[in-house]
Amino acid sequence: MVRILIVYYEASGGTEAMARAIAAGVKEGGGEAVIKRVEDTAPEDLKAADGVVFGSPTYYGLPAPRMLALFEESVRCHGALEGKAGGAFAVSANIGGGNETTVMALIQAMLVHGFVVQGSPAGDHFGPVSVGAPDRRVKTQCGEYGRRICALAAKLRG
Amino acid sequence: MVRILIVYYEASGGTEAMARAIAAGVKEGGGEAVIKRVEDTAPEDLKAADGVVFGSPTYYGLPAPRMLALFEESVRCHGALEGKAGGAFAVSANIGGGNETTVMALIQAMLVHGFVVQGSPAGDHFGPVSVGAPDRRVKTQCGEYGRRICALAAKLRG
Amino acid sequence: MVRILIVYYEASGGTEAMARAIAAGVKEGGGEAVIKRVEDTAPEDLKAADGVVFGSPTYYGLPAPRMLALFEESVRCHGALEGKAGGAFAVSANIGGGNETTVMALIQAMLVHGFVVQGSPAGDHFGPVSVGAPDRRVKTQCGEYGRRICALAAKLRG
Amino acid sequence: MVRILIVYYEASGGTEAMARAIAAGVKEGGGEAVIKRVEDTAPEDLKAADGVVFGSPTYYGLPAPRMLALFEESVRCHGALEGKAGGAFAVSANIGGGNETTVMALIQAMLVHGFVVQGSPAGDHFGPVSVGAPDRRVKTQCGEYGRRICALAAKLRG
Repeated sequence: MVRILIVYYEASGGTEAMARAIAAGVKEGGGEAVIKRVEDTAPEDLKAADGVVFGSPTYYGLPAPRMLALFEESVRCHGALEGKAGGAFAVSANIGGGNETTVMALIQAMLVHGFVVQGSPAGDHFGPVSVGAPDRRVKTQCGEYGRRICALAAKLRG
Repeated sequence: MVRILIVYYEASGGTEAMARAIAAGVKEGGGEAVIKRVEDTAPEDLKAADGVVFGSPTYYGLPAPRMLALFEESVRCHGALEGKAGGAFAVSANIGGGNETTVMALIQAMLVHGFVVQGSPAGDHFGPVSVGAPDRRVKTQCGEYGRRICALAAKLRG
Repeated sequence: MVRILIVYYEASGGTEAMARAIAAGVKEGGGEAVIKRVEDTAPEDLKAADGVVFGSPTYYGLPAPRMLALFEESVRCHGALEGKAGGAFAVSANIGGGNETTVMALIQAMLVHGFVVQGSPAGDHFGPVSVGAPDRRVKTQCGEYGRRICALAAKLRG
Repeated sequence: MVRILIVYYEASGGTEAMARAIAAGVKEGGGEAVIKRVEDTAPEDLKAADGVVFGSPTYYGLPAPRMLALFEESVRCHGALEGKAGGAFAVSANIGGGNETTVMALIQAMLVHGFVVQGSPAGDHFGPVSVGAPDRRVKTQCGEYGRRICALAAKLRG
């Protein structure tokens, strides 16, 4: 059974709800889902997982500084995360408010660690995004995303 | 009076309507607006304008190849577009469908020419985006964007 | 044995040499490598491969329009490329000339198809990049990249 | 006389030297240059300048968290930075190490504030980048960049 860690930063709402919906998808996919606030996450937690999904509100078109601080700390695990499944999700206040650029920034950071990232041809292409509070559409996207990353992590573990 | 060229690629709809709404904003701002399909646009048309706004549907998270072909041709004006006002807008089929990444890709291309690009603290931050057919929200964004680029081009011309 | 297709666009040189170095790495990794110019590549060729690496010179900070035209055509295989291994490489004329943004643009396009992309913690993080003609450093990066995508494609095929 | 603030985060070296070279260019262009470490910079300092250049090392393909924390704090000046000249520079350890993606991330953040950003058709297109310690090429780029942002800020102030 693969273990997927979902790390999120919560500010004005939305990321925690998305994290829960992704976790539900992971469980439906047969995996174990662990949800953690970024403040409670150590780089070693990333290492202990088969896959990691990072979620953040959009701060000036980018992830929250607190989320990037985890990447900065994770330099002490540099190399040890290579080949794990990775994913990202984001919340923005508005359409055109930077949720895609936030997801792509998280993907860039994961690629530097050697994470393996998959897009989606049908749903939110780079990772689930919510404009304002997550609605049913977003939760469906998140559930599907959880199932997908679970399947990817299982393949990668072999 | 500044002259703003709005170049768009039309596929399944939306970009032409956004181009018209931006042109209306340019006129309200006291400028001259010229709308052209990308197929009818030569690099010299970019040179003749004080500012250029490029609009494209989202093709695999990026601008339409036909739009990038104009940039490729425009190498013969390389250097001559420096300091002009630039902007971008995009249409995607879905939320999370790549409209922000498309706008940012166009901005990257413009920066290589030396264009001057301004974001917006209130509206769609990188440039107007529409999810599906442009609704009232999108048209309001486009009008405001037209007024802004007109003001920017005027300042840059001095 | 996995089959890796390396599709490149050649303009003023460099991408073909990088494609050959990646192909050599694929063979060292135990895979079959097929090299094709983008002009000779049909979307069905992407479908026939277990992994695809796209290489392009940098045109205004983005991939060559001809390369993106292949993505546009590939809409007729939309969904059928999901889960394949994907990668990208780029050549730019100068440092700061857009090779990273070109690689990231190709990665964005691949993610929309549902490709699976891996970064590297040690080498060129997003994919091999060359500033000017590929030197020994670049060829070493490409060889290593070929071995890595071969291993990734094998895992994904199971 | 325009006032250009250069804010940098220093880690393993390079950004401070680049900041000084940009400041020299600003002075040559007839402007006043103020250099500040990000730890000593308040959002009000951004407000007091006609133009701001942000410089950071590359942390996982993105700016240092400390730099993004300044953007987070600067929300209390949201709207008040609109129309100012903006720019960015970055240092990475390696080619393909993320300096372009770092500069583009800073540009994204600036656009959300409504900053006005200009690319360069001749030099490092998005902003000066250094691979390792800044050499003569980098310092020349920085000097030229300082002169350019000075000229841009002057035009924008009218």
